[in-house]
Amino acid sequence: MEPTRHRIYMDHSATTPVDPRVVEAMRPYWSEVFGNTSSAHAWGQEAAAALERARETVAEVLGCRPSEVVFTGSGTEADNLAIRGVAWAARKAERGNHVVTIPIEHHAVGHTVEQLRDLFGFEVTVVPVDEHGRVDPDDVRRAIRADTVLVTVMTANNEVGTVQPIAEIGAICREFGVPLHTDAVQAAGRLDLNVDRLGVDLLSISAHKFYGPKGVGVLYVRRGVDLVPALTGGGHERGRRPGTVNVAGAVGLAEALRLAEEIREEENVRLQMLRDRLIERVLESIPDVRLTGHPTERLAHHASFAFRGVEGASVVVQLDLEGIAASSGAACAEGEPEPSGVLTAMGFPPEWAVGALRLTLGRDNTEADVDTVLEVLPRIIAHLRQ
Amino acid sequence: MEPTRHRIYMDHSATTPVDPRVVEAMRPYWSEVFGNTSSAHAWGQEAAAALERARETVAEVLGCRPSEVVFTGSGTEADNLAIRGVAWAARKAERGNHVVTIPIEHHAVGHTVEQLRDLFGFEVTVVPVDEHGRVDPDDVRRAIRADTVLVTVMTANNEVGTVQPIAEIGAICREFGVPLHTDAVQAAGRLDLNVDRLGVDLLSISAHKFYGPKGVGVLYVRRGVDLVPALTGGGHERGRRPGTVNVAGAVGLAEALRLAEEIREEENVRLQMLRDRLIERVLESIPDVRLTGHPTERLAHHASFAFRGVEGASVVVQLDLEGIAASSGAACAEGEPEPSGVLTAMGFPPEWAVGALRLTLGRDNTEADVDTVLEVLPRIIAHLRQ
Repeated sequence: MEPTRHRIYMDHSATTPVDPRVVEAMRPYWSEVFGNTSSAHAWGQEAAAALERARETVAEVLGCRPSEVVFTGSGTEADNLAIRGVAWAARKAERGNHVVTIPIEHHAVGHTVEQLRDLFGFEVTVVPVDEHGRVDPDDVRRAIRADTVLVTVMTANNEVGTVQPIAEIGAICREFGVPLHTDAVQAAGRLDLNVDRLGVDLLSISAHKFYGPKGVGVLYVRRGVDLVPALTGGGHERGRRPGTVNVAGAVGLAEALRLAEEIREEENVRLQMLRDRLIERVLESIPDVRLTGHPTERLAHHASFAFRGVEGASVVVQLDLEGIAASSGAACAEGEPEPSGVLTAMGFPPEWAVGALRLTLGRDNTEADVDTVLEVLPRIIAHLRQ
Repeated sequence: MEPTRHRIYMDHSATTPVDPRVVEAMRPYWSEVFGNTSSAHAWGQEAAAALERARETVAEVLGCRPSEVVFTGSGTEADNLAIRGVAWAARKAERGNHVVTIPIEHHAVGHTVEQLRDLFGFEVTVVPVDEHGRVDPDDVRRAIRADTVLVTVMTANNEVGTVQPIAEIGAICREFGVPLHTDAVQAAGRLDLNVDRLGVDLLSISAHKFYGPKGVGVLYVRRGVDLVPALTGGGHERGRRPGTVNVAGAVGLAEALRLAEEIREEENVRLQMLRDRLIERVLESIPDVRLTGHPTERLAHHASFAFRGVEGASVVVQLDLEGIAASSGAACAEGEPEPSGVLTAMGFPPEWAVGALRLTLGRDNTEADVDTVLEVLPRIIAHLRQ
């Protein structure tokens, strides 16, 4: 690291720093109000009260009942609980054996659905997406069968930022009486998460994507949706998620979500201006580059590109040497070989799909940061192409 | 709460306050070194380096390789990963279908084994325990079959503090080539956790039981033990536990474990003296009371009793009114009806098994605290019996 140079973090879809106000909100719950929320005594009940306040805050943002909010240990665990929980409950009730999803889900969803298929004999229909990564709700309609027990479609894609037509898919699912789960991990703090407007029955979020701590997520579960716990143990979280509740984490998640919601719209306007500047100039100044994901139906902070004949991983390394944090696809696909499965599913040929670069803006990024990237990136691409 | 009165927390088996040194160790990992350990850039690699240092610290205490340490979101998740992970892997490899356990396991183990049986068609043998809650290793030997794929026996019981003969059971399991998992959640920070001396192949711990944060656990997995991840998603933790790693939590767990190990032996001597004073005087001064759990093979900080004809839950409420935190059995069995399943499995008749009281000592407890309890408790029991 060169301490003299301004470092630029532009990988906010991978993770975000914890907002200092969130750290402060968590502080009392380490060593002072430290009780186990399951304990009957005052120590436990003080902690339980803090947990319920956090639950109410989350419920307000989601527009749901507090009892429909389940705290989990991560967004991944929330996805697992939603998908396995509904699928296993359906199997127990002999309601069916079929799940519908799309090919560009995060692995927390994609691998969970695959495991249902490969290890537990479920049938899966993967509805394709178009070249912008968007699914056609009518294709989802056609995929639903009499034995479909769950549709799971992400709110917004992590690699390319494309926002899915969740409300339309929700209306279709409601018509057929099939529960709809959405992985809203990338959307949280960025899009309206009102579960009724989205028309979803289950929704996953993760605190560390919106300036909250790592290690805590939420699954919203609409009243009446039958779940087998994905993890088994004690009766915590109304029997839906066992394990001593991480009170500090829940308080941190709630405070981070509240703060993000407060500034969401105005911050989106600011980030979108910066992002549009970034996209426009990259497309102008670098040859053989394409914007990946939807041109308009995308997260406001999210710019993603494919550079033909350049390895995205090398671009990330070069940017890092210049003090700039970016990503080639998903941070969570540790150790995966390129090309990007998401870009491949969107129809990108391998020589493009290896060259993915994601720049995701955040609260601390300024126009000067964008201009630094615009100065550095064309040079790096030209150098790598030599 | 009466602010003028000294409050006495004597429920350290439910949870512990985070050691201020642990809070301090976690501090940099909220807003400064905040990267996603899966990210290739400097932010990610700084976080990954901190995570690996934490892993090494844990490995030192367990006497294992760092690569055998898997960070999870809780002790419950560690138990789920161990049990489902081994059982599902065995099923995939068609190695067998049979699991051996004991009837006084924590629900994180007990319910997971039950789910394997009820939802996934595994066969389960529950080996009985004696009146002190101890299993006879020879009974475990007789329960092992050609198709046994896992034995899971806790290191020490949460409700009655009894320590199991894990090393003997480990030797038997090794003879038969069957992996042994132990839920060491109550033992961590209190007993020697060296996995070779214990002779275990999988071991679960949870930070919040040894003055670390809630929401983080560890599963030790001996090299060569085949696991299907209990949660599915990204390739984190060498493909064994997906989800963005909670770096602050892992650092906190490691520091808490290191600190606990440092003072373990001398603290055990101190706590055992206090505990023995507590046990002796309770048995002397209160009629119709029994010590539950093993008289000598028990955790040094752990005192547990059964009062005939008194509801343990009522004792806890009365103690709470006096500013004393205790428990009637496990904190994790939220909303469960008495009598205690653990005491019932140990042969206690219902009129005794409803009257469980657990007092678990910790670092801040003094002889004066014990004496306060000894002054208050006989009065409460007499009052409740009237």
